[in-house]
Amino acid sequence: MLPEKILAWGKTRSCIRELAEYGARRKAEIGAENVYDFSLGNPSVPVPECVDEAVAEILKDSSDKPHAYTTAAGLLSLRKRIAEDVNGRFGLDIDPERIYVTCGAAAGLTISLKAVLEPGEEVVVIAPFFPEYRVFTEASGGVLKVVPAAEDFKVDIEAFKAAVSEKTRAVIINSPNNPSGAVLSDNDLGSMADILREAEERYDRTIYLISDEPYREIVYDGRSITSPLSIYADSIMCYSFSKSLSIPGERIGYIAVNSRMKDAGEVYAAIMGAGRALGYVNPPSLFQRVIEKCIGVTADISEYELNRKTLTEGLKSIGYEYVEPEGAFYLFLKALEPDAKAFSERAKKHELLLVPSDDFGCTGYVRVSYCVAGKTIEDSMPAFKALFNEYSK
Amino acid sequence: MLPEKILAWGKTRSCIRELAEYGARRKAEIGAENVYDFSLGNPSVPVPECVDEAVAEILKDSSDKPHAYTTAAGLLSLRKRIAEDVNGRFGLDIDPERIYVTCGAAAGLTISLKAVLEPGEEVVVIAPFFPEYRVFTEASGGVLKVVPAAEDFKVDIEAFKAAVSEKTRAVIINSPNNPSGAVLSDNDLGSMADILREAEERYDRTIYLISDEPYREIVYDGRSITSPLSIYADSIMCYSFSKSLSIPGERIGYIAVNSRMKDAGEVYAAIMGAGRALGYVNPPSLFQRVIEKCIGVTADISEYELNRKTLTEGLKSIGYEYVEPEGAFYLFLKALEPDAKAFSERAKKHELLLVPSDDFGCTGYVRVSYCVAGKTIEDSMPAFKALFNEYSK
Repeated sequence: MLPEKILAWGKTRSCIRELAEYGARRKAEIGAENVYDFSLGNPSVPVPECVDEAVAEILKDSSDKPHAYTTAAGLLSLRKRIAEDVNGRFGLDIDPERIYVTCGAAAGLTISLKAVLEPGEEVVVIAPFFPEYRVFTEASGGVLKVVPAAEDFKVDIEAFKAAVSEKTRAVIINSPNNPSGAVLSDNDLGSMADILREAEERYDRTIYLISDEPYREIVYDGRSITSPLSIYADSIMCYSFSKSLSIPGERIGYIAVNSRMKDAGEVYAAIMGAGRALGYVNPPSLFQRVIEKCIGVTADISEYELNRKTLTEGLKSIGYEYVEPEGAFYLFLKALEPDAKAFSERAKKHELLLVPSDDFGCTGYVRVSYCVAGKTIEDSMPAFKALFNEYSK
Repeated sequence: MLPEKILAWGKTRSCIRELAEYGARRKAEIGAENVYDFSLGNPSVPVPECVDEAVAEILKDSSDKPHAYTTAAGLLSLRKRIAEDVNGRFGLDIDPERIYVTCGAAAGLTISLKAVLEPGEEVVVIAPFFPEYRVFTEASGGVLKVVPAAEDFKVDIEAFKAAVSEKTRAVIINSPNNPSGAVLSDNDLGSMADILREAEERYDRTIYLISDEPYREIVYDGRSITSPLSIYADSIMCYSFSKSLSIPGERIGYIAVNSRMKDAGEVYAAIMGAGRALGYVNPPSLFQRVIEKCIGVTADISEYELNRKTLTEGLKSIGYEYVEPEGAFYLFLKALEPDAKAFSERAKKHELLLVPSDDFGCTGYVRVSYCVAGKTIEDSMPAFKALFNEYSK
């Protein structure tokens, strides 16, 4: 009698959460130091001091009412700071009146999809992709259209072109990518934008590029990131402070509608409507003020680059295959047998918790989250070696 | 090209917010003390000290990671405290494993409705009702079925009975009520429960009673509240700490599925699925801990009872008509002409901001929110008098 899909989403836990919960039980059994838990994308780097300092300052200020309702879109003073920051860093001209502060990037995505999708319309994603994209799309009545990535986990331009049709209403990109760590190049973005503009013209409809970018500050080798909004007018940015400030529990991020979008005002109104319809009254009020004070600050994300080095060098010397991640804190490792779930199960025997790739939309890989203590990576190497040897017999 | 309803919800602001924004502009023009702003339900009573003290304590505790992800349903330690508190006060046996902590009551309602509604199913509400019930119901594909209240703004049992049909999937009740302040009696609840049980049997379907109760601590004349969960098994409680702790901006509340519900486990799973589908990853993590420390505490809500006295006695002596509110902090005042919007406009000329009743599902009234400083009420009396005199000419 209950809606079937909703019930299924409640019952089938995400494989990531399931593995993490197994890990928690296992750590209680044999000690945390004996479990190499690479399951979750929970930032390991400490929260920067500015966050707790900001909280203390805000609560001391008796002229403010930090726990009262704010406007649905978030405090205008915060939206101005966000626009300044993002415009300065990415050469954009986002209008504070086109920013909608959200309860994290997940809310940003569900609100954006609800704002633009009519039932049956398609949302194109490149696999591997964050599994919740499927849930978010289907919850708004849309249909997920999965395009396998190229071998380097970036976009396969021909496959992408073939997937865009008269039913496409949106494309979600996620660069740096969870779970592969791939970063789309300016060329990739340019080619995708050309294809989308051509399709918009051919089918006489708007196709929105939704850029899910919680990892954009976490890039390696001195790489810089180009904002998709500077390349494609019909773009919507979804950002979260979860990873850059190590505060994923607080649920704070934002949607920014590209000022260069022709219908920016209408799309922003639909976002306001969707946020209201989904029950988002306003983003958490105290943390709106915290972000206003901490804008531009990041946690010490250099630790992740060090982790990447330790992990990839160690695994390479054992004989594992992977594509070097360029950002985020995930390594997409080739499983040593075609069945990623079976491989993940065998890894468990060595106390290695690696997420099988199936839910990310492709087979034969595992995701290794290296947002963990450096020591965990070092200590895990004998287990990775033993697992490898099992397959070499 | 954008979904019509969503766009409309984004464009047509709620009349409450619209009036409040007019109020903000007007205060800037002529001084806050000269505008009698009764538009918003923003708690006026100070946040109890325990809230900021809890924040300070939590941030001092270096063993905790208060900004990290929590489980989707909220910390189990918090859910245990909530169950203890609510079971103790209302004689219930809610299981912590059937509590789902939410970003406020609005999220609780959207998640509950998404969890139980199939497209086209009906949700019964008693008018006057909180206008967002319509948005939340329609956003989940449901149809709102409005039943006019009895003259005392409580339930008209015959009308309620007539509204429940083979299409009914849920009933939303809100006692104490926004906007009337009416509290359903045990008799009312009992009769409604009988009607629903009979309908469940007749139509062989479950009908969920969704109890939206953010005002349950704010009741007057020493009144006590009976929980609908103790009277009707297929009940879902939606609560928010917004009003009892004066922290509406922080977005924290919970859903509790009645342990006596036959399908409690399935409904809880659907709630988990709906929360995931709407993008609610976890409720704000710092405030989960704050609530754990402040459970059972309320702001000094006795101030609202004092406000009620000042307001109702003042208005009565002028000649206004109303039904004495038994809870919440709203007075539903009979407009002095049939068109509530026209009356609200004339009130504005006297700097009185009163919300017309049309969006609450009935005509000819205005909502007066008396969660304001006592002085505002006193100072507003000459304006109320002048407005009354205008109509007496």
